[in-house]
Amino acid sequence: MSKNLTSRAEDYSKWYNELVVKADLAENSAVRGCMVIKPYGYAIWEKMQAELDRMFKETGHQNAYFPLFVPKSLFEAEEKNAEGFAKECAVVTHYRLQNDPENEGKLRVDPEAKLEEELVVRPTSEAIIWNTYKGWIQSYRDLPILINQWANVVRWEMRTRLFLRTAEFLWQEGHTAHATKAEALVEAEQMNNVYAKFAENFMAIPVIQGVKTESERFAGAVETYCIEALMQDGKALQAGTSHFLGQNFAKAFDVKFTNNEGKLDHVWATSWGVSTRLMGALIMTHSDDKGLVLPPNLAPSQVVIVPIYKNDEQFDAITAKAETIINDLKALGVSCKFDKRTTHRPGAKFAQHELQGVPLRIAIGPKDLENNTVELARRDTLSKEVVEMSGLAQTIKNLLDTIQDALYKKALNYRDEHITEVDDFENFKKVLENKTGFISAHWDGTSESEQKIKELTKATIRCIPLNNKMEEGVCVFSGKPSKQRVLFAKAY
Amino acid sequence: MSKNLTSRAEDYSKWYNELVVKADLAENSAVRGCMVIKPYGYAIWEKMQAELDRMFKETGHQNAYFPLFVPKSLFEAEEKNAEGFAKECAVVTHYRLQNDPENEGKLRVDPEAKLEEELVVRPTSEAIIWNTYKGWIQSYRDLPILINQWANVVRWEMRTRLFLRTAEFLWQEGHTAHATKAEALVEAEQMNNVYAKFAENFMAIPVIQGVKTESERFAGAVETYCIEALMQDGKALQAGTSHFLGQNFAKAFDVKFTNNEGKLDHVWATSWGVSTRLMGALIMTHSDDKGLVLPPNLAPSQVVIVPIYKNDEQFDAITAKAETIINDLKALGVSCKFDKRTTHRPGAKFAQHELQGVPLRIAIGPKDLENNTVELARRDTLSKEVVEMSGLAQTIKNLLDTIQDALYKKALNYRDEHITEVDDFENFKKVLENKTGFISAHWDGTSESEQKIKELTKATIRCIPLNNKMEEGVCVFSGKPSKQRVLFAKAY
Repeated sequence: MSKNLTSRAEDYSKWYNELVVKADLAENSAVRGCMVIKPYGYAIWEKMQAELDRMFKETGHQNAYFPLFVPKSLFEAEEKNAEGFAKECAVVTHYRLQNDPENEGKLRVDPEAKLEEELVVRPTSEAIIWNTYKGWIQSYRDLPILINQWANVVRWEMRTRLFLRTAEFLWQEGHTAHATKAEALVEAEQMNNVYAKFAENFMAIPVIQGVKTESERFAGAVETYCIEALMQDGKALQAGTSHFLGQNFAKAFDVKFTNNEGKLDHVWATSWGVSTRLMGALIMTHSDDKGLVLPPNLAPSQVVIVPIYKNDEQFDAITAKAETIINDLKALGVSCKFDKRTTHRPGAKFAQHELQGVPLRIAIGPKDLENNTVELARRDTLSKEVVEMSGLAQTIKNLLDTIQDALYKKALNYRDEHITEVDDFENFKKVLENKTGFISAHWDGTSESEQKIKELTKATIRCIPLNNKMEEGVCVFSGKPSKQRVLFAKAY
Repeated sequence: MSKNLTSRAEDYSKWYNELVVKADLAENSAVRGCMVIKPYGYAIWEKMQAELDRMFKETGHQNAYFPLFVPKSLFEAEEKNAEGFAKECAVVTHYRLQNDPENEGKLRVDPEAKLEEELVVRPTSEAIIWNTYKGWIQSYRDLPILINQWANVVRWEMRTRLFLRTAEFLWQEGHTAHATKAEALVEAEQMNNVYAKFAENFMAIPVIQGVKTESERFAGAVETYCIEALMQDGKALQAGTSHFLGQNFAKAFDVKFTNNEGKLDHVWATSWGVSTRLMGALIMTHSDDKGLVLPPNLAPSQVVIVPIYKNDEQFDAITAKAETIINDLKALGVSCKFDKRTTHRPGAKFAQHELQGVPLRIAIGPKDLENNTVELARRDTLSKEVVEMSGLAQTIKNLLDTIQDALYKKALNYRDEHITEVDDFENFKKVLENKTGFISAHWDGTSESEQKIKELTKATIRCIPLNNKMEEGVCVFSGKPSKQRVLFAKAY
């Protein structure tokens, strides 16, 4: 397989698919729509998990684990949620295989091992969790419940793409229970904020916080908060959502509590999640035609050292130097790998580390030994310079911070340059054709106009930004009066 | 629900079930045989995961993620493995639900959404992983592959018990690929060693390393290494297994590589795993009639501070003292919680922390304020002493080490006292009736004798210990000659 990627300009979608596979992030599996997350891709996901988990715990949440399966009767209890997910449910109907009498050496489901009640493989866990919370909540003293779960979920999607849309994916789902509406709203907003901070500070992805329109809301939610990011091809990507569920699930599962005035009331709920989809957002925000570009905060190795030598003596001297560098970097909390493989030439190593997005590459050759220098190459700018060994670790640490900032600012500039205010529908369509990102336009607030715009242009309302400026205007589609602009885009 | 547990002497099994629920570790769910792992139980599991993960990475392994589902045709490819798990497989047959025309508001599987090929919910992942490895391995340069996965698996067990045997459980499964038999054997032994070290140093559970007999081996393995622990009721518990799989899976999935002499050969394999079952082992090794006893290395909070006060002034003074203690402990890497809940009296707090096994409890009352002391109570020995504030953090850190050691030694003594050498079958049965643990006895090496002993006594061969002493003898059942003793026990 050629190491050269299709360029983004040539075919963005092909570039993405090739990059995911060639950079060893993930690949398709033998199971329709399910992916294998390879060690390098998983290492990035682990970094995301670690930071998110820290942020969840810092905001008072605890992890727990609920069953993979949801009995059909529970699944259908909250009507809107059931309706929203019924069309994409993997369903377990049997619990045993047996030898197939018609095909020797083959197995078939044992017709006598049919389940009395079918089990849905969780597409999301509100139903099983709220059925459990019912047993945990009697009084306001049992509230709030602030729980998160790291888990796999299954949604039987017809068209799948690595990380972006897969039948099985990994995610976290927070499920909280509160005594008051106000407290639940604060929680839903807080977690959307946590997601925004994580995206910006760790993934170096600028996001717009907003709420979804009714038709784009999570099935069963009263309000869906979201963070929306813009990819390099002008399409938006929903990177995380946090739902205020009102009392919908408490009512469906009869979860009541005695409040501090002694009265019975239904419990208020939120749920919130991000998934391995974030890997797709990461790739499509920063990477280039040479491959992956990783923000230092998420890179499995922040630095890699490649030795360039002609004999054992040189190799030994370089190794000694590399070990010093690695130890100095470790003391500063910077991860560094020494790529001393003898199966690959330096050029091949350079290409691989570029493809895999290692933020900084150090090359050490005979001249560097003489001059007490190293060659330092940045992945993001592809620039190189010769640097003194003295103070190198601190130089690198500072440079990694610089890179982290630069990636964010570059993405922010791109995003800000790709929000176009549009006031008439012809222009709306033209801007979309040019793939220029978000359109900020007036909308009359009706699902009818939203639906028509979607049918005509494939653009959806990504969100109504939080703290939106109020402004008189008329709907870009219907011409009816409007009080604020919303963000439209084609989306992943 | 009463806080008092059934005593172990009264009904060990009931004691266990009550403890798991009352200590807030886990509970049964609405899904047959599946449990909910509650935050306190999950926090202990997270500690186990973190340490195991560190040990796996230290031995060169990386994490990855493979699909939850195994297509039936892959599942049945390795015959013995398929045969071993076919009887307990949850099977997905449909991918959609629809409104049930006969029951308004209800859903049913959509008969038109039947899968062409059924999907088995993984009971273990050898099949899907080896089918994937086929695409990754061409040459010896691609080997070894050293991968671990943290995942949920499903085995449709008929009789389930919280943590010990559940239809769905959490585990890690390592799957490695090697160029030589010798290397694969070293890996399988190494990982069994890792498990033994983890059990002993972190869980404070002494284990016996050994290999399984043919009939007790993992389905598809050539050799199964294991660690066996002894529970307080004299039953053994298999705490972890590591399998040398030979070339069975490579042959079933046609995974060949070119070795360094240019010849094609099948790849050698291992797999190894531990699961949430370890929670059961932890509970049944250390806990007592008052509840859970946790080794300090696995306790979510190693220390808890309970304030005893009559007025705000006292509470403020105690709080100041508690904060000092918490900061000092934090600096030494010791976790400590301040239980300042106003909804519970000190006595209720004491009982709860005892039930939940917090290794050390500090009580601070008005007298302690006067005398600059605290009361320090050990969970394992239930002993209390008044201790000077000065140097308290270091005292506590040392005491936690002492407790960790003491728990291990106590369990080791118990285990060693419960291995009985037996040379005739009448005595064999008598020892078993008295629930006195492992029986060390000669066995003729045949599956027939093993099977008969099992039928007559319910005892199985737990393992043939590694580095076993060679000793002439005769089989305790058949009287045929034998070269070594093996360990029998009834087991979880």
